[in-house]
Formats: sequence, C-alpha cells, structure tokens
Amino acid sequence: MDNRELLGKQMGFIMEIDKIKSVFRKSRLFDGSRYENDAEHSWHLAVMAAVLAGYSAKPIDIAKVIKMVIIHDIPEAYTGDVIVYAKTGPAPSDEDMLAAKKIFGLLPDGQGEEFYGLWLEFEKKETAEAKFAGALDRLEPLMQNYYNNGSTWKENNISADMVREINSRINDGAPELWDYAAFLIDDSVKKGFIA
Amino acid sequence: MDNRELLGKQMGFIMEIDKIKSVFRKSRLFDGSRYENDAEHSWHLAVMAAVLAGYSAKPIDIAKVIKMVIIHDIPEAYTGDVIVYAKTGPAPSDEDMLAAKKIFGLLPDGQGEEFYGLWLEFEKKETAEAKFAGALDRLEPLMQNYYNNGSTWKENNISADMVREINSRINDGAPELWDYAAFLIDDSVKKGFIA
Repeated sequence: MDNRELLGKQMGFIMEIDKIKSVFRKSRLFDGSRYENDAEHSWHLAVMAAVLAGYSAKPIDIAKVIKMVIIHDIPEAYTGDVIVYAKTGPAPSDEDMLAAKKIFGLLPDGQGEEFYGLWLEFEKKETAEAKFAGALDRLEPLMQNYYNNGSTWKENNISADMVREINSRINDGAPELWDYAAFLIDDSVKKGFIA
Repeated sequence: MDNRELLGKQMGFIMEIDKIKSVFRKSRLFDGSRYENDAEHSWHLAVMAAVLAGYSAKPIDIAKVIKMVIIHDIPEAYTGDVIVYAKTGPAPSDEDMLAAKKIFGLLPDGQGEEFYGLWLEFEKKETAEAKFAGALDRLEPLMQNYYNNGSTWKENNISADMVREINSRINDGAPELWDYAAFLIDDSVKKGFIA
C-alpha cells in the first residue's frame, strides 16, 4: 500500500466515525437539557480517566485507558446505543463484533487490528485497564442521573435494585468510586429520583 | 485535604466541564447537518491523534497529545468559541488564561496546575506535541468544510488566501497532513466552496 492509499484509508475512518455524534444515549447531560451523544460521552470518559486515574483498583496504563474510552463506542455508528439495563447475555454480541470489524476494518492493516483489539479488551472487562474504563462508563451516566433528578431511571422504570446491580461493576475497577456511586444511589432513593 | 474533599473537587470539575457540550463551534459536522460542539470536536481530535500519530514532523509522546486535545477547549466553558479567522494577537489572551485558571483551579492542587500547564503548552505551540495537536485542531474543521461544501467559509466570507494562511500551521506539526490539507483547499476553490 502506498502512502496516499494509507492516508486515504485513515481519512475514510476519521470521516465515518463522525456518525457517533448522531447516536444519542438514554442519559441526559448533567443539566438535563437534552440527551447526550456517543462522541460527547466518550470525551467525558477520557477527561474522567485523566482526572480519576489514581482511584484504579490496580496499577494501570492510563494512556491505554484513555485510548480505550475514546474508541469504545465507535462501533455504535452501525448498531446504535442500547441502554445498559436492557443488555442480556455475554458482551460483546455477534452484532457488536461485526460492527466493530466493519468500522475498524476501514483502517489500514495493523492499525485496524490494534483498534479492534483495544475495543474487544474493553468489552471483555478482564484487564485492569478495561475494568477501570468500564467503571467510568458506568459512573458518568449515574452522576448525570443524580444531578438531573433521575431522568433515565424514571423514563425507563429502572428500580434502585437494578441501578445498584448494574453499577456495582464500578467496584471491580475503582472501589473508592463505587463508595461514591453507592452514596449517590442511596441519596437518589431518598430524594425520590428512583422508585 | 482529606480523601473526600479531594474527590469532591475532582467531581466538581467533572460536572463543570459538561458545559462545553453546549459551546458550539463555527464549523458543522461532516454531513453539514448542524454545528459541532467543543466536546465532540475534542473527542474527534483525540481519535485523529491516535490514528495519525505517525505523521508528526518530530517524535512525540502521543499519550500527551491525546491528553492535550481532550482538555484544550475546556476553558471555553467560560469564554465561548471564537472562529480561528477572527483571532488576533498572541495566544492565549488574558481572558483565556483567566478562564483556564478558574476552571482547572477547581481541581485539587497539583492536578489543577498539571492540567493548566498542558493547556498552556497547547496554546503556545512551541513543543512537538503542541504543534502536532495544533495541526489536528486545524485539520478537522478543514476536512468538515471540504465535505459539507464549505459552510463555515461561505457563512463567514472567508477567502482561499485566508484559509491557506491560517491552516498552513498544519505544516509545522505534520507536513504530509499539510500536503493533504492543501489539496483539499485547492479542490475547494475549484469546486466553488471558497471564494
């Protein structure tokens, strides 16, 4: 592959991923004004990773975590966003993997495999980096819901037990952040944000 | 400062930066459907940095570049976005520096200074990392304008000479990306996207 073809593939990928700016999540911004899209969410997780790196349960390569969170939702360009409370079965699904192969496959050989591998590592939640990234992925919408009076929980009839169960994964990556999250959940129940 | 106070400051910062999701730029998404906000733009630059790292003019710490681009627009939570073609005088302005001190000052001591320092490094464009990050910051809107028929250029009466002058900074950070950008500019003139 010559240099022009290489750059052409990379630019094709860079354009294609613009689509996730139009993939809207089920959670709203902190001020509740509108739903958040995948690109904004990924950016927020990246800054959170940089700020909160010290809370990881295990030593981590924070640069890898940041790269992981900025690409973790890119395959949703093709599959769309599914609320975490509706997910069943092992992650990732066959559909997720096909979408990931398709979009990361736009990149030149080698780079495409590297991005796909990082995405798959995030999905599997086996490494310390994936566990910490996964904790942030749960924490951000939980904080948003706490500060916008539980909009996602109310709109989707999510109970406090479901919120606790789904978000307890934060404990795998960052126990101190789970303590904070558990406080937000308890206080949300007291304030009537969760049934 | 005890641990709870430390985390409280970090969470305060994480909430405050949500504001840049409502700071809209002068450039539109690749499909032209709406203006892009600062959070989406920062995310896109981070992915571009990961994909295009090999084109840097000089050896760089790519993790530092990614961290730089995810925080580079955070002070715009207070100052808003100014079109690059309207900027005069040395960057950053006094107003920019005040805004940066205020928002990064929400973080605990040490961390706030680290983020402020990284932001200032980006603004000054003296290091190899800042030059490469700056190249991406120019390239993304140029690509968007090429693919949405020059919306920013038309809406703001920007001439081809202005586009060439402002974007030639890409050459400082990534000469091969400037070759690509120069082609997009020339072709935009041919296609009538720029006067």
